[in-house]
Amino acid sequence: MAQPVDATLTDVGEFGLIAELVALFEQGEQVLIGPGDDAAVLRIRNGHVVVSSDLMVEGRHFRRDWASAEDVGHRAAAQNLSDINAMGGVAHSLTIGLAAPGDLPAQWALDFARGFAAECALVGASVVGGDLTRADQVVVAVTVMGACTEAPVVRSGAAAGDVLALTGRQGWAAGGLAVLGRGFRSPRVLVEAYRRPAPPYPAGRVAAEAGATAMIDISDGLLAEAGHLAERSGVSIDVRRDAFDLAEPLLAVGAALGVDPMEFVLGGGDDHALLATFGSRAQVPEGWSVIGSVAEGSGVTVDGAAYEGPTGWTHF
Amino acid sequence: MAQPVDATLTDVGEFGLIAELVALFEQGEQVLIGPGDDAAVLRIRNGHVVVSSDLMVEGRHFRRDWASAEDVGHRAAAQNLSDINAMGGVAHSLTIGLAAPGDLPAQWALDFARGFAAECALVGASVVGGDLTRADQVVVAVTVMGACTEAPVVRSGAAAGDVLALTGRQGWAAGGLAVLGRGFRSPRVLVEAYRRPAPPYPAGRVAAEAGATAMIDISDGLLAEAGHLAERSGVSIDVRRDAFDLAEPLLAVGAALGVDPMEFVLGGGDDHALLATFGSRAQVPEGWSVIGSVAEGSGVTVDGAAYEGPTGWTHF
Repeated sequence: MAQPVDATLTDVGEFGLIAELVALFEQGEQVLIGPGDDAAVLRIRNGHVVVSSDLMVEGRHFRRDWASAEDVGHRAAAQNLSDINAMGGVAHSLTIGLAAPGDLPAQWALDFARGFAAECALVGASVVGGDLTRADQVVVAVTVMGACTEAPVVRSGAAAGDVLALTGRQGWAAGGLAVLGRGFRSPRVLVEAYRRPAPPYPAGRVAAEAGATAMIDISDGLLAEAGHLAERSGVSIDVRRDAFDLAEPLLAVGAALGVDPMEFVLGGGDDHALLATFGSRAQVPEGWSVIGSVAEGSGVTVDGAAYEGPTGWTHF
Repeated sequence: MAQPVDATLTDVGEFGLIAELVALFEQGEQVLIGPGDDAAVLRIRNGHVVVSSDLMVEGRHFRRDWASAEDVGHRAAAQNLSDINAMGGVAHSLTIGLAAPGDLPAQWALDFARGFAAECALVGASVVGGDLTRADQVVVAVTVMGACTEAPVVRSGAAAGDVLALTGRQGWAAGGLAVLGRGFRSPRVLVEAYRRPAPPYPAGRVAAEAGATAMIDISDGLLAEAGHLAERSGVSIDVRRDAFDLAEPLLAVGAALGVDPMEFVLGGGDDHALLATFGSRAQVPEGWSVIGSVAEGSGVTVDGAAYEGPTGWTHF
């Protein structure tokens, strides 16, 4: 950038920074009109648009001393792209709003945008518009749009007799967050999993094509999200501990912090793994693991019994 | 609501408040899946989606002591719906993110949502999703989606020889803001224009059908927005003072505050009037007034000369 490396948002000004940000965003072929007009215009091939919006607030959803700007950009994009994944859709376009104090380094905003754009590129999606304004605290507002079939996979379709399956890393981000919360920086692989989740992007569409009956993105904790599936579907769900092979770094952190590492798996969010139900074990696609079952009734159990640990990880 | 009238966001909790908010949002026929799943799903009839996002920050874009929650809701929706209007499109769906301190009265959020939904209903649009979270300051993040033709009206299409035309109230909101800024509350009609703008919603589509060559929404000031049209189209624009009949309340406020009321008209934003160019005077639709002309060159003049007053109203 043409500005000094320590230039702030106030130094650069909104219009100057917007021009630099927009230059980072490559436009896909679905974009008829990109950033810079009153609105963007997208060409939509199929007849459905799947859309979701999320807010991330500094100090609540992220800390600038715990993750780089690029990491925060990756996370902000990932948690939104994951919502489209969880419907069985494929994201194509995003808008991004950034509210920030005037003393925010302009470089932070640019690095954030670079991370955001890189995450979007993983699924071939474009940043087509947004807004930049001042606020006392950094707030990131993202809306993501995607394509889906006329039969998106919702939370309410699970039926007694279905199997419960999971894909993606689960519990790693919660382990990383626990490590950071105690002032540590290792195991690095877990800290990185928290800073920059790796959602299983194509898996949602694959599950939809395989006939998933219900699906949800694990952002707040496996058992909490299983609870949403159970409630919305009017069923009970049982999760089996022995379905999980605890990865070595989770065992190490559990031992170091004196925590049962299964708590990270059962209560952890932020990895943006997917949880889905299928009519039979034979329908579960490659890359998914059966971790439980669906029955009549209500609520979520672990190995057939009530679970006493935390069911949803609290964002500090 | 079931909560005591003075309940805060903290008292009610996010999940409780979300349920009450969602109940306020009626879903249109384009909504296959509304709020409450990982994402909403819209059925899209035509092949284009026009999309825009905006942020509103308390203390910067609105003050809770200057406008009711319902007014702020109306304004937040209006400024976004206006962006779709300015492309010649028709809004159909919105998402809304609300970040707020825990001590925000839950009733404020509900009244805000009621105003937001009422404004959306003016154009038949639905609130299909959103997010609610805590922050130090109220931040409202809105994304609006709409339908448009394959030839949306952009900022870059004005050509030498075109006429410049305006529709909608212009300068009233700036007059109202000036009144509030001096601690007054009247003329009430101007204060109300600031609190709750009345954008000329169907006018954008009408202008598009009439062959408008370029169009923009006046959110930051008439001359500032004319400047964007001129720059993007590679032309010069001249605005004529005698094209405006100054309404009586503007004359009254000008006299009371010792300000030339034309400053509100030429520099004021927030009314969300539309500015457009047409190839000839004969093409200008009913309800629009010709206020200037387009020529070769660059920049914006008033009555053929450089303008010395404020060209864009600054949000305090």
